[in-house]
Amino acid sequence: MERTLIGDLAGKKGMVVNIQGWVSVRRDQGKMVFFDFRDRSGSVQGVVLLKSAAIETAKEVRNEYVVSVEGKVNARPEKNVNAKVQNGDIELEVSALTVLAKAEPLPFDMSLDGYNLDLTTELDHRALALRHPRLQAIFKVQEVIIDSFREYMKGQDFFEFQAPTIVPAVAEGGAEVFKVDYFDKKAYLSQSPQLYKQIVMTAFERVFSVNKIFRAEPSSTTRHLTEVVSLDAEMSFIQSWEDVRDMAEATVRYILLEVQTKCAKELELLGATLPAMIEKTPTLSLTEAFTKLDIPADKDLNPEQERKLCEMIKEETGSDFVFVYGYPTRQKPFYVYPNPEAPEFNEGVDLLCRGVEWLSGGRRINDYAQLMEHVQKWGMDPKKIEMFLEAFRYGAPPEGGFAFGAERMTMQILGLKNIREATMFPRDMHRIDGSLSEEK
Amino acid sequence: MERTLIGDLAGKKGMVVNIQGWVSVRRDQGKMVFFDFRDRSGSVQGVVLLKSAAIETAKEVRNEYVVSVEGKVNARPEKNVNAKVQNGDIELEVSALTVLAKAEPLPFDMSLDGYNLDLTTELDHRALALRHPRLQAIFKVQEVIIDSFREYMKGQDFFEFQAPTIVPAVAEGGAEVFKVDYFDKKAYLSQSPQLYKQIVMTAFERVFSVNKIFRAEPSSTTRHLTEVVSLDAEMSFIQSWEDVRDMAEATVRYILLEVQTKCAKELELLGATLPAMIEKTPTLSLTEAFTKLDIPADKDLNPEQERKLCEMIKEETGSDFVFVYGYPTRQKPFYVYPNPEAPEFNEGVDLLCRGVEWLSGGRRINDYAQLMEHVQKWGMDPKKIEMFLEAFRYGAPPEGGFAFGAERMTMQILGLKNIREATMFPRDMHRIDGSLSEEK
Repeated sequence: MERTLIGDLAGKKGMVVNIQGWVSVRRDQGKMVFFDFRDRSGSVQGVVLLKSAAIETAKEVRNEYVVSVEGKVNARPEKNVNAKVQNGDIELEVSALTVLAKAEPLPFDMSLDGYNLDLTTELDHRALALRHPRLQAIFKVQEVIIDSFREYMKGQDFFEFQAPTIVPAVAEGGAEVFKVDYFDKKAYLSQSPQLYKQIVMTAFERVFSVNKIFRAEPSSTTRHLTEVVSLDAEMSFIQSWEDVRDMAEATVRYILLEVQTKCAKELELLGATLPAMIEKTPTLSLTEAFTKLDIPADKDLNPEQERKLCEMIKEETGSDFVFVYGYPTRQKPFYVYPNPEAPEFNEGVDLLCRGVEWLSGGRRINDYAQLMEHVQKWGMDPKKIEMFLEAFRYGAPPEGGFAFGAERMTMQILGLKNIREATMFPRDMHRIDGSLSEEK
Repeated sequence: MERTLIGDLAGKKGMVVNIQGWVSVRRDQGKMVFFDFRDRSGSVQGVVLLKSAAIETAKEVRNEYVVSVEGKVNARPEKNVNAKVQNGDIELEVSALTVLAKAEPLPFDMSLDGYNLDLTTELDHRALALRHPRLQAIFKVQEVIIDSFREYMKGQDFFEFQAPTIVPAVAEGGAEVFKVDYFDKKAYLSQSPQLYKQIVMTAFERVFSVNKIFRAEPSSTTRHLTEVVSLDAEMSFIQSWEDVRDMAEATVRYILLEVQTKCAKELELLGATLPAMIEKTPTLSLTEAFTKLDIPADKDLNPEQERKLCEMIKEETGSDFVFVYGYPTRQKPFYVYPNPEAPEFNEGVDLLCRGVEWLSGGRRINDYAQLMEHVQKWGMDPKKIEMFLEAFRYGAPPEGGFAFGAERMTMQILGLKNIREATMFPRDMHRIDGSLSEEK
């Protein structure tokens, strides 16, 4: 008999079907055994009566056994209907039960409400914990975030390219980079596809990439990992940095809308409320931000100031988001475009939400002479970025771009406390899958 | 004036428009200057007459200058119509020409027909060469290959996860792996997401990933790179290895169809003919393959035998593709499922096309006891794959999967001679962007 997905059972009342999946719950009541079976499409209750040929197997089966189940889809008696759960009005009366794979006794409670692991234990048992609806919901939301980014970019005529992971030199900063043992030559893991997306932009105009980036920060905060997924975009023929800001805003707006539409169930399960984006997200220069906060101007907002600013903007406008632009030029990388009317400030822009930076971007220098001037001023070695410089030597249009982290956004959207919760296989200085202990 | 994309000019005859892009060709005929302008949507001819206000700028502009052009879209006189090229029936009569960015004189001929670099020089100038229509066509086809893989998987209810890059141990083989300097702990670059996709399969049933994999092979062949994009799928609740084969076939069929439909222009430019996939791709066991080749059975087909087999199948059936299954069990990794009726052969399967392996996959062991038996026999350290083993300890359904390389498939579909041509930023033992010389 062909397998029916559990999510399709609702329309099959009175029919005999085959389902295949895992045992989530088993309650032996002596005269009958109740089960919750689950597959990728959902859950359904099953009952094995004493008279059923399946009763012996039913007595042996335990949680997380993988089973093939034949049974009749019965409507539940009115008093047993549970409108709050999937398939709450039906029940599978099991006539045959085959074990496809056994499971050892579980090391912890995997039930929907009983699951309650501290994060370290959860990460030590990530393989098993991934079966829990709460974790599945997190990663389904993350999938939608990444998909929506890609969809929106493609809809705006952006070309997707594969940014490299192994890089020959470190363009920005050097301390927080991982070295790779590369045939006795110098090589590193990419900290950002920044220079590559700018290169590809000079050929394809509008480009994006979904790629891993790496930071060797020896820190153990709730917001940092050594390996994350970066969503990167770069666009040319812009009129001003505002074009970049507007594209970033439209992208985030699209992602939020998609998450809201496609992940209603997951958001409810996780108790998450999406941040509010009003029709036009407020924009402040850094100087204006400091004025608003009524404190002296500085190089950047600190976390406390970011929180305060977001609160004020929320209060005033209802927006959970605010753009801040115009940072001190020398505080930022060499490629950021200085404001022609006040060159001590640049045209970089960050998007804050609920007190945290979500996205960073801005206009870049496209004029080769100006770029070379900055390379000199920033003390960079042109040989190490020769491929990048070549792209701009032969005609590069006015351009800019932005980037944000998939895990960070997942964490923020869902109100998770730790970025490790928003990462399927988180890596930090103490953990790669399991805890790191073996010295090299 | 708002920018019009060159690809939209055909419908704007008689109108004055603004276009923005690069100068591909410039022919100064004294009394007038002809241009080919290009943007991401295509090319158009422009003409600047002596009487035009743009004539002075037109005399200064050179190839690859980035320009903003105002002009009237004129129908070309009948005798000048060129039906073979985009916009061959129109011409832009330029009234204003603004330089957005200059370009230095080009180091080589970038014209459509004149471009003729040897591969090493092309790779040394990748940033500039990427602007050539031939290279753009290659990477557009690659984008469609990857997109179609993702689309087909999603259509079949596969969940996309982000496979990790940094891994704690080397599950298969050890020599060809890159070490990462990871806070003084052992860490490597992933050679394959195999064990991770199997883990995630036990939670999400059907999963796929698009991710980088790394091989430290100290070789310099035309088919190997150190960093490539792997397209990986894993599916559960299969009846047999044939389910995996059929999914692989359907996936490749979908990709070919999408490339044919969406990349007709690119295929023509590159002179590529897609391989023929008949209604049901022929399948042979390895033993049958050797019989067909009329040679004694061996552990695997060598490249010459693969070529010969593909020729014979093509001759007999018209199919460019052939599946070969059933390899000696001990020749393959521990997780491959042995044929229950002849355990010395496994249920791994490869897809060959035009003499080359395109895709590899098969059924995997899902029974925990059998898996542990193989772990022992293969001499593996269970501690190093504890996360993987946990997934199978607690109930894993019958399952299998497949994987193929995006660059390899791009190369094969387009009939390119070297995988570096199918890789935007190829890495090998001698090159990361530029040639490697600096010792670490």
